[in-house]
Amino acid sequence: MTAAPRGEFGWIARLIAVLAESGAEGAAAIGDDAAIVQELAGPPTVWTIDTLVEGVHFRFDWLDPEAVGRRALAASLSDLAAMGAEPLGALVAAAGPAGVVGARIEGVYRGIAALAGAAGCPILGGDLARAEGPLHLTVTALGRCADGPPLTRHGARVGDEVWVTGELGGPAAALALLGAEGTAPGVRAHAAYERLARPWPRNREIAWLRARAQIDAAIDLSDGLSGDARHVAVRSGVRIVLEAERLPLHPGAVDAARRRGEDPFEWALHGGDELEILLISPAGALGSHAEAFAETFNVPLTRIGTVGEGSGVDLVRAGAAAPLRSRAWDHFAGD
Amino acid sequence: MTAAPRGEFGWIARLIAVLAESGAEGAAAIGDDAAIVQELAGPPTVWTIDTLVEGVHFRFDWLDPEAVGRRALAASLSDLAAMGAEPLGALVAAAGPAGVVGARIEGVYRGIAALAGAAGCPILGGDLARAEGPLHLTVTALGRCADGPPLTRHGARVGDEVWVTGELGGPAAALALLGAEGTAPGVRAHAAYERLARPWPRNREIAWLRARAQIDAAIDLSDGLSGDARHVAVRSGVRIVLEAERLPLHPGAVDAARRRGEDPFEWALHGGDELEILLISPAGALGSHAEAFAETFNVPLTRIGTVGEGSGVDLVRAGAAAPLRSRAWDHFAGD
Repeated sequence: MTAAPRGEFGWIARLIAVLAESGAEGAAAIGDDAAIVQELAGPPTVWTIDTLVEGVHFRFDWLDPEAVGRRALAASLSDLAAMGAEPLGALVAAAGPAGVVGARIEGVYRGIAALAGAAGCPILGGDLARAEGPLHLTVTALGRCADGPPLTRHGARVGDEVWVTGELGGPAAALALLGAEGTAPGVRAHAAYERLARPWPRNREIAWLRARAQIDAAIDLSDGLSGDARHVAVRSGVRIVLEAERLPLHPGAVDAARRRGEDPFEWALHGGDELEILLISPAGALGSHAEAFAETFNVPLTRIGTVGEGSGVDLVRAGAAAPLRSRAWDHFAGD
Repeated sequence: MTAAPRGEFGWIARLIAVLAESGAEGAAAIGDDAAIVQELAGPPTVWTIDTLVEGVHFRFDWLDPEAVGRRALAASLSDLAAMGAEPLGALVAAAGPAGVVGARIEGVYRGIAALAGAAGCPILGGDLARAEGPLHLTVTALGRCADGPPLTRHGARVGDEVWVTGELGGPAAALALLGAEGTAPGVRAHAAYERLARPWPRNREIAWLRARAQIDAAIDLSDGLSGDARHVAVRSGVRIVLEAERLPLHPGAVDAARRRGEDPFEWALHGGDELEILLISPAGALGSHAEAFAETFNVPLTRIGTVGEGSGVDLVRAGAAAPLRSRAWDHFAGD
């Protein structure tokens, strides 16, 4: 234990040290009005910004500060992954009350630094401000697409296949467990909780696929499969048909659903906070790589649907197709 | 008048339209997980992020939404100017309560777009979230230094001269008027208020100087002259000696000081929210360009001190030198 830093500039020095200690390269250079980008590993091609707000996107009674920090950086890195990019670097802005900053910000930055180190994303600078109300964590990240232009939401074509990385429903299952049971020991030790607390963005996985196969469109599932599939359908002017029986359910979601008497498909279809990537590819393009992908990353790659003429998203379940309504969280629904 | 947008995605579409209408190039391409940086005018060299919080950095009863938007973008562009960079593009993240967003966010984005257009800084994307508490506006901007590496705070050398762009004290004078008199008509029409409500970052001015003269260190005066001169002194390991009689006072500050019975030098020395740039240059390097600078930009360039051996910041006033204490706002003072 070391004493708490004194004042804003003491806190900034402490947080720079946390980032550097944890292996986030670049932190040592922090200290000017802006970060120097020339030190990045190459020219950026994509750029994102994402704000997580306490009480909206995370709760400190459900996640420890390290997990909150991981989620803040992971959200931006996942946006880069959806564009086919690997991270070059990030900046972090935090604003919150003195009490929250004093008690938790160091842990938050430790979580950011841990993921930054593992993902090869140096934290190059940031901003720290006091504000009443909930803690806001904003991360901006630059990334580079090594093979070809950035992936977008508008390239899906009729006849394409719909694929997804990983297994779905874990974060939504964790939130259901937390809502019903709080942070009882059995909840924090649950496989679904791990999916919420230790998110892993798919930058390397998508770059690996990109180098081997044509991908026409991609999006991450941060709004949930139903909502994000709709974004692609709207932007591409196509209908996306998902097959319920093909959805890869996370074992933690299956177990939590049994425990809570819920339907894990609902979590897989509509649950947000999911960092898996939906991929739209020409027929046959990804199939021949799925096995090698699973072996390389220990992550499944699953075909879950097709792209057809029309609009919107359909779900085929027990042989019957029906329109799939999005239940994505809308920050300003009804206003 | 048009109807209010429906929901988060309606708001996002409306705000993209506001940015595009106002001449901020690039807004039309918004809509994927991340912005595409390849469309920038060149490779970035510096990168900044800055959060402005309602009630801390701005008040809607003192500034209209357009002015708040301008200040949010100007803060980041000023950080780039301090590094010697001109802007390539920016992203904007906003998070606040539905009522504030509904009533004011469109005006805020109109102000951002107006400055973005004037400063040649396309807004390429962003994020919008609902959160209780004050509105947070976070801007991240990329910039490029055309001539030489980025300017920093650590290059000041003994024997250098200290220069400043523009005239000081306007924003602090405006805040003093607002605090004492509120937004009476005479306040909003005051020259000092104009300095607060219509900030202009010095990117072009510094790039122009950079192309003509050696600059050893630079910083913007967002924390106020006394605090920012200290940052340079600490990082460069030198003493900065400022001469009170040389400080260029803004006419609005002089008038407001007379009206309120205050000392305008205090505002010029300690007032934050100032977007002028402090420049440290070898003796004689800037002097021969000051007249052409003033003619080109209609902005004075004034020598206000020297760099000596030692540490800290001294102020010479009426022939006597004394240490100048920083009164910069510390977000976490006393915690």
